[in-house]
Amino acid sequence: MKDAITTILERHSVREYTDQPVADEQLYVLLRAAMAAPSAKNMQPWHFVVIKERETLNRLMKALPYAKMLEKAPLAIAVCGDTENSQGVAPNSWVMDCSAATENLLLAAQALNLGAVWTGVYPYPDRVEPVQKALELPVSVVPLNVIVIGYPLTKGKAKDKWKKERIHLESW
Amino acid sequence: MKDAITTILERHSVREYTDQPVADEQLYVLLRAAMAAPSAKNMQPWHFVVIKERETLNRLMKALPYAKMLEKAPLAIAVCGDTENSQGVAPNSWVMDCSAATENLLLAAQALNLGAVWTGVYPYPDRVEPVQKALELPVSVVPLNVIVIGYPLTKGKAKDKWKKERIHLESW
Repeated sequence: MKDAITTILERHSVREYTDQPVADEQLYVLLRAAMAAPSAKNMQPWHFVVIKERETLNRLMKALPYAKMLEKAPLAIAVCGDTENSQGVAPNSWVMDCSAATENLLLAAQALNLGAVWTGVYPYPDRVEPVQKALELPVSVVPLNVIVIGYPLTKGKAKDKWKKERIHLESW
Repeated sequence: MKDAITTILERHSVREYTDQPVADEQLYVLLRAAMAAPSAKNMQPWHFVVIKERETLNRLMKALPYAKMLEKAPLAIAVCGDTENSQGVAPNSWVMDCSAATENLLLAAQALNLGAVWTGVYPYPDRVEPVQKALELPVSVVPLNVIVIGYPLTKGKAKDKWKKERIHLESW
Protein backbone atom coordinates (compact mmCIF):
# COMPACT_ATOMS: atom_id res chain seq x y z
CA MET A 1 0.00 0.00 0.00
CA LYS A 2 1.27 3.46 -0.86
CA ASP A 3 2.47 5.95 1.72
CA ALA A 4 0.20 8.68 3.03
CA ILE A 5 1.76 11.63 1.16
CA THR A 6 1.54 9.82 -2.19
CA THR A 7 -2.07 8.88 -1.50
CA ILE A 8 -2.93 12.49 -0.62
CA LEU A 9 -1.31 13.77 -3.82
CA GLU A 10 -2.83 11.07 -6.04
CA ARG A 11 -6.40 11.32 -4.70
CA HIS A 12 -8.83 12.57 -7.32
CA SER A 13 -12.54 12.44 -8.00
CA VAL A 14 -13.78 9.26 -9.69
CA ARG A 15 -17.24 9.38 -11.26
CA GLU A 16 -17.41 6.15 -13.30
CA TYR A 17 -17.22 2.70 -11.81
CA THR A 18 -16.98 -0.95 -12.82
CA ASP A 19 -19.65 -3.47 -11.83
CA GLN A 20 -17.49 -4.82 -9.00
CA PRO A 21 -19.20 -4.43 -5.62
CA VAL A 22 -17.31 -3.02 -2.64
CA ALA A 23 -16.77 -5.70 0.02
CA ASP A 24 -17.86 -4.99 3.58
CA GLU A 25 -14.25 -5.34 4.67
CA GLN A 26 -13.30 -2.34 2.54
CA LEU A 27 -16.42 -0.44 3.54
CA TYR A 28 -15.55 -0.72 7.21
CA VAL A 29 -12.01 0.52 6.57
CA LEU A 30 -13.55 3.62 4.97
CA LEU A 31 -15.83 4.18 7.96
CA ARG A 32 -13.06 3.61 10.48
CA ALA A 33 -10.88 6.13 8.66
CA ALA A 34 -13.70 8.68 8.62
CA MET A 35 -14.27 8.30 12.36
CA ALA A 36 -10.56 8.87 13.04
CA ALA A 37 -10.88 12.53 12.02
CA PRO A 38 -10.39 15.33 14.52
CA SER A 39 -13.46 17.23 15.73
CA ALA A 40 -14.10 20.36 17.77
CA LYS A 41 -13.88 19.39 21.46
CA ASN A 42 -13.80 15.77 20.25
CA MET A 43 -17.60 15.82 19.86
CA GLN A 44 -17.50 13.51 16.81
CA PRO A 45 -20.83 14.89 15.54
CA TRP A 46 -20.96 12.57 12.52
CA HIS A 47 -23.25 9.83 11.26
CA PHE A 48 -22.80 7.72 8.15
CA VAL A 49 -25.66 6.34 6.10
CA VAL A 50 -24.37 3.47 3.95
CA ILE A 51 -26.35 2.84 0.78
CA LYS A 52 -25.82 -0.34 -1.23
CA GLU A 53 -29.29 -1.28 -2.47
CA ARG A 54 -30.06 -0.26 -6.03
CA GLU A 55 -33.49 1.00 -5.00
CA THR A 56 -32.05 3.36 -2.39
CA LEU A 57 -29.27 4.51 -4.74
CA ASN A 58 -31.94 5.35 -7.33
CA ARG A 59 -34.05 7.18 -4.76
CA LEU A 60 -31.01 9.22 -3.78
CA MET A 61 -30.25 9.94 -7.44
CA LYS A 62 -33.73 11.38 -7.84
CA ALA A 63 -33.16 13.56 -4.77
CA LEU A 64 -29.83 14.83 -6.14
CA PRO A 65 -29.93 16.02 -9.73
CA TYR A 66 -26.15 16.51 -9.70
CA ALA A 67 -25.32 12.99 -8.58
CA LYS A 68 -25.98 11.03 -11.79
CA MET A 69 -22.91 8.92 -11.06
CA LEU A 70 -25.09 7.08 -8.53
CA GLU A 71 -26.74 5.30 -11.47
CA LYS A 72 -23.85 2.88 -11.88
CA ALA A 73 -22.25 3.04 -8.45
CA PRO A 74 -22.27 0.05 -6.10
CA LEU A 75 -21.98 2.16 -2.95
CA ALA A 76 -22.69 5.58 -1.51
CA ILE A 77 -22.14 7.01 1.94
CA ALA A 78 -24.03 10.07 3.15
CA VAL A 79 -21.89 11.91 5.68
CA CYS A 80 -24.27 13.66 8.06
CA GLY A 81 -23.88 16.08 10.94
CA ASP A 82 -25.80 15.77 14.17
CA THR A 83 -26.60 19.44 14.70
CA GLU A 84 -27.83 18.75 18.22
CA ASN A 85 -24.50 17.21 19.24
CA SER A 86 -22.67 20.51 19.51
CA GLN A 87 -23.56 21.88 22.93
CA GLY A 88 -20.92 24.34 24.01
CA VAL A 89 -19.30 24.16 20.57
CA ALA A 90 -19.79 26.59 17.68
CA PRO A 91 -23.16 25.99 16.00
CA ASN A 92 -21.58 25.04 12.70
CA SER A 93 -18.54 23.12 13.89
CA TRP A 94 -20.15 19.93 12.57
CA VAL A 95 -19.50 21.26 9.03
CA MET A 96 -15.73 21.35 9.64
CA ASP A 97 -15.70 18.07 11.55
CA CYS A 98 -17.71 16.21 8.91
CA SER A 99 -15.54 17.71 6.15
CA ALA A 100 -12.39 16.37 7.83
CA ALA A 101 -14.09 12.97 8.24
CA THR A 102 -15.06 13.05 4.56
CA GLU A 103 -11.50 13.78 3.47
CA ASN A 104 -10.29 10.80 5.52
CA LEU A 105 -12.92 8.66 3.83
CA LEU A 106 -11.87 9.84 0.35
CA LEU A 107 -8.20 9.20 1.10
CA ALA A 108 -8.95 5.73 2.46
CA ALA A 109 -10.87 4.98 -0.75
CA GLN A 110 -7.87 6.08 -2.80
CA ALA A 111 -5.59 3.94 -0.65
CA LEU A 112 -7.81 0.88 -1.26
CA ASN A 113 -7.76 1.47 -5.05
CA LEU A 114 -11.37 2.51 -4.92
CA GLY A 115 -12.60 5.69 -6.56
CA ALA A 116 -14.91 8.21 -4.95
CA VAL A 117 -16.40 11.64 -5.43
CA TRP A 118 -17.78 14.21 -2.99
CA THR A 119 -21.20 15.41 -4.16
CA GLY A 120 -22.31 18.43 -2.16
CA VAL A 121 -25.64 18.48 -0.34
CA TYR A 122 -25.37 21.09 2.45
CA PRO A 123 -26.05 24.04 2.50
CA TYR A 124 -28.55 23.87 -0.39
CA PRO A 125 -32.08 23.43 1.07
CA ASP A 126 -33.26 21.93 -2.25
CA ARG A 127 -30.77 19.10 -1.75
CA VAL A 128 -30.74 18.77 2.05
CA GLU A 129 -34.48 18.19 2.37
CA PRO A 130 -34.84 15.59 -0.42
CA VAL A 131 -31.86 13.63 0.95
CA GLN A 132 -33.25 13.82 4.49
CA LYS A 133 -36.51 12.44 3.11
CA ALA A 134 -34.88 9.73 0.97
CA LEU A 135 -32.81 8.48 3.92
CA GLU A 136 -35.45 9.11 6.60
CA LEU A 137 -33.14 11.38 8.59
CA PRO A 138 -34.38 13.33 11.62
CA VAL A 139 -34.53 17.09 10.94
CA SER A 140 -31.60 17.66 13.29
CA VAL A 141 -29.37 15.40 11.18
CA VAL A 142 -28.10 17.30 8.15
CA PRO A 143 -26.46 15.54 5.21
CA LEU A 144 -23.24 17.39 4.34
CA ASN A 145 -22.62 15.34 1.22
CA VAL A 146 -23.10 12.02 -0.51
CA ILE A 147 -19.85 10.22 -1.28
CA VAL A 148 -20.27 7.97 -4.31
CA ILE A 149 -17.86 5.03 -4.35
CA GLY A 150 -16.83 2.14 -6.59
CA TYR A 151 -13.91 0.65 -8.47
CA PRO A 152 -12.72 3.15 -11.12
CA LEU A 153 -13.73 2.34 -14.69
CA THR A 154 -10.72 4.17 -16.10
CA LYS A 155 -7.35 5.12 -14.72
CA GLY A 156 -7.70 8.77 -13.72
CA LYS A 157 -5.10 11.22 -12.60
CA ALA A 158 -4.91 13.91 -9.93
CA LYS A 159 -4.84 17.54 -11.01
CA ASP A 160 -1.74 19.51 -10.07
CA LYS A 161 -3.21 22.19 -7.82
CA TRP A 162 0.04 23.61 -6.46
CA LYS A 163 -0.20 27.42 -6.33
CA LYS A 164 2.78 29.15 -4.75
CA GLU A 165 0.86 32.44 -4.62
CA ARG A 166 -1.45 30.98 -1.98
CA ILE A 167 1.43 30.87 0.49
CA HIS A 168 2.13 33.96 2.63
CA LEU A 169 5.12 34.23 4.94
CA GLU A 170 4.49 35.71 8.40
CA SER A 171 1.63 37.95 7.17
CA TRP A 172 -0.53 38.62 4.12
CA MET B 1 6.90 5.83 5.34
CA LYS B 2 3.69 4.32 6.62
CA ASP B 3 0.69 3.60 4.42
CA ALA B 4 -2.21 6.02 4.22
CA ILE B 5 -4.72 4.03 6.29
CA THR B 6 -2.24 3.58 9.16
CA THR B 7 -1.41 7.29 9.05
CA ILE B 8 -5.10 8.22 9.14
CA LEU B 9 -5.73 5.92 12.13
CA GLU B 10 -2.60 7.02 14.00
CA ARG B 11 -3.04 10.78 13.52
CA HIS B 12 -3.68 12.59 16.79
CA SER B 13 -3.35 16.09 18.20
CA VAL B 14 0.12 17.03 19.41
CA ARG B 15 0.39 20.08 21.67
CA GLU B 16 3.98 19.90 22.99
CA TYR B 17 7.04 20.12 20.80
CA THR B 18 10.81 19.78 20.97
CA ASP B 19 13.12 22.68 20.05
CA GLN B 20 13.80 21.19 16.62
CA PRO B 21 12.74 23.54 13.82
CA VAL B 22 10.71 22.28 10.87
CA ALA B 23 12.77 22.37 7.67
CA ASP B 24 11.36 24.16 4.63
CA GLU B 25 11.41 20.88 2.76
CA GLN B 26 8.90 19.43 5.23
CA LEU B 27 6.89 22.64 5.32
CA TYR B 28 6.39 22.55 1.56
CA VAL B 29 5.24 18.92 1.70
CA LEU B 30 2.57 20.01 4.19
CA LEU B 31 1.45 22.85 1.92
CA ARG B 32 1.44 20.68 -1.20
CA ALA B 33 -0.69 18.09 0.63
CA ALA B 34 -3.12 20.77 1.77
CA MET B 35 -3.53 22.12 -1.76
CA ALA B 36 -4.29 18.62 -3.07
CA ALA B 37 -7.64 18.62 -1.26
CA PRO B 38 -10.92 18.59 -3.17
CA SER B 39 -12.97 21.78 -3.29
CA ALA B 40 -16.44 22.75 -4.47
CA LYS B 41 -16.27 23.33 -8.24
CA ASN B 42 -12.46 23.10 -7.85
CA MET B 43 -12.37 26.72 -6.67
CA GLN B 44 -9.48 26.05 -4.26
CA PRO B 45 -10.51 29.00 -2.05
CA TRP B 46 -7.60 28.60 0.37
CA HIS B 47 -4.63 30.63 1.48
CA PHE B 48 -1.93 29.61 3.93
CA VAL B 49 -0.10 32.00 6.19
CA VAL B 50 3.12 30.37 7.38
CA ILE B 51 4.44 31.66 10.71
CA LYS B 52 7.94 30.81 11.86
CA GLU B 53 9.19 33.97 13.55
CA ARG B 54 8.95 33.97 17.35
CA GLU B 55 7.56 37.50 17.34
CA THR B 56 4.68 36.57 15.03
CA LEU B 57 4.01 33.35 16.93
CA ASN B 58 3.78 35.40 20.14
CA ARG B 59 1.48 37.95 18.50
CA LEU B 60 -0.77 35.11 17.36
CA MET B 61 -0.72 33.58 20.83
CA LYS B 62 -2.00 36.86 22.25
CA ALA B 63 -4.76 36.89 19.64
CA LEU B 64 -5.78 33.32 20.51
CA PRO B 65 -6.19 32.64 24.22
CA TYR B 66 -6.75 28.93 23.49
CA ALA B 67 -3.54 28.45 21.54
CA LYS B 68 -0.98 28.49 24.34
CA MET B 69 0.89 25.69 22.55
CA LEU B 70 2.20 28.41 20.22
CA GLU B 71 4.57 29.45 23.00
CA LYS B 72 6.98 26.60 22.30
CA ALA B 73 6.07 25.74 18.71
CA PRO B 74 8.52 26.33 15.85
CA LEU B 75 5.79 26.64 13.22
CA ALA B 76 2.16 27.54 12.70
CA ILE B 77 0.04 27.69 9.57
CA ALA B 78 -3.17 29.70 9.45
CA VAL B 79 -5.53 28.08 6.96
CA CYS B 80 -7.69 30.86 5.54
CA GLY B 81 -10.67 31.01 3.22
CA ASP B 82 -11.00 33.56 0.47
CA THR B 83 -14.68 34.37 0.90
CA GLU B 84 -14.72 36.31 -2.37
CA ASN B 85 -13.48 33.30 -4.34
CA SER B 86 -16.79 31.49 -4.33
CA GLN B 87 -18.80 33.01 -7.14
CA GLY B 88 -21.51 30.60 -8.16
CA VAL B 89 -20.64 28.31 -5.27
CA ALA B 90 -22.42 28.11 -1.90
CA PRO B 91 -21.42 31.07 0.29
CA ASN B 92 -19.83 28.88 2.93
CA SER B 93 -18.26 26.21 0.74
CA TRP B 94 -14.82 27.59 1.68
CA VAL B 95 -15.41 26.19 5.19
CA MET B 96 -15.69 22.64 3.83
CA ASP B 97 -12.87 23.09 1.33
CA CYS B 98 -10.47 24.55 3.89
CA SER B 99 -11.41 21.82 6.38
CA ALA B 100 -10.50 19.13 3.84
CA ALA B 101 -7.23 20.95 3.10
CA THR B 102 -6.53 21.14 6.84
CA GLU B 103 -7.08 17.41 7.29
CA ASN B 104 -4.61 16.73 4.46
CA LEU B 105 -2.11 19.01 6.19
CA LEU B 106 -2.56 17.24 9.54
CA LEU B 107 -2.17 13.82 7.92
CA ALA B 108 0.96 14.93 6.06
CA ALA B 109 2.40 16.16 9.37
CA GLN B 110 1.70 12.77 10.94
CA ALA B 111 3.31 11.04 7.95
CA LEU B 112 6.47 13.15 8.38
CA ASN B 113 6.67 12.31 12.10
CA LEU B 114 5.68 15.85 12.95
CA GLY B 115 2.94 16.63 15.44
CA ALA B 116 0.18 19.14 14.89
CA VAL B 117 -3.04 20.42 16.39
CA TRP B 118 -6.05 22.22 14.88
CA THR B 119 -6.91 25.27 16.96
CA GLY B 120 -10.26 26.68 15.89
CA VAL B 121 -10.63 30.32 14.87
CA TYR B 122 -13.74 30.56 12.67
CA PRO B 123 -16.63 31.18 13.37
CA TYR B 124 -15.83 33.01 16.61
CA PRO B 125 -15.65 36.78 15.89
CA ASP B 126 -13.47 37.28 19.00
CA ARG B 127 -10.86 35.02 17.41
CA VAL B 128 -11.33 35.80 13.70
CA GLU B 129 -10.76 39.54 14.06
CA PRO B 130 -7.63 39.39 16.26
CA VAL B 131 -6.05 36.80 13.93
CA GLN B 132 -6.95 38.90 10.87
CA LYS B 133 -5.25 41.83 12.59
CA ALA B 134 -2.18 39.87 13.73
CA LEU B 135 -1.62 38.49 10.23
CA GLU B 136 -2.75 41.62 8.34
CA LEU B 137 -5.42 39.70 6.43
CA PRO B 138 -7.93 41.50 4.19
CA VAL B 139 -11.46 41.41 5.66
CA SER B 140 -12.56 39.02 2.90
CA VAL B 141 -9.96 36.45 3.99
CA VAL B 142 -11.20 34.53 7.01
CA PRO B 143 -8.90 32.36 9.12
CA LEU B 144 -10.57 28.98 9.65
CA ASN B 145 -7.94 27.78 12.09
CA VAL B 146 -4.33 27.97 13.16
CA ILE B 147 -2.47 24.70 12.84
CA VAL B 148 0.37 24.54 15.37
CA ILE B 149 3.21 22.24 14.30
CA GLY B 150 6.48 20.84 15.62
CA TYR B 151 8.28 17.64 16.49
CA PRO B 152 6.38 15.85 19.28
CA LEU B 153 7.92 16.14 22.74
CA THR B 154 6.38 12.85 23.84
CA LYS B 155 5.09 9.81 22.03
CA GLY B 156 1.32 10.26 21.89
CA LYS B 157 -1.37 7.88 20.77
CA ALA B 158 -4.53 8.18 18.74
CA LYS B 159 -7.85 7.80 20.52
CA ASP B 160 -10.03 4.91 19.40
CA LYS B 161 -13.09 6.75 18.11
CA TRP B 162 -14.82 3.83 16.42
CA LYS B 163 -18.56 3.98 17.13
CA LYS B 164 -20.63 1.34 15.39
CA GLU B 165 -23.84 3.15 16.33
CA ARG B 166 -22.93 6.00 13.99
CA ILE B 167 -23.39 3.69 10.99
CA HIS B 168 -26.85 3.36 9.46
CA LEU B 169 -27.67 0.90 6.70
CA GLU B 170 -29.80 2.22 3.82
CA SER B 171 -31.68 4.69 6.05
CA TRP B 172 -31.65 6.16 9.56
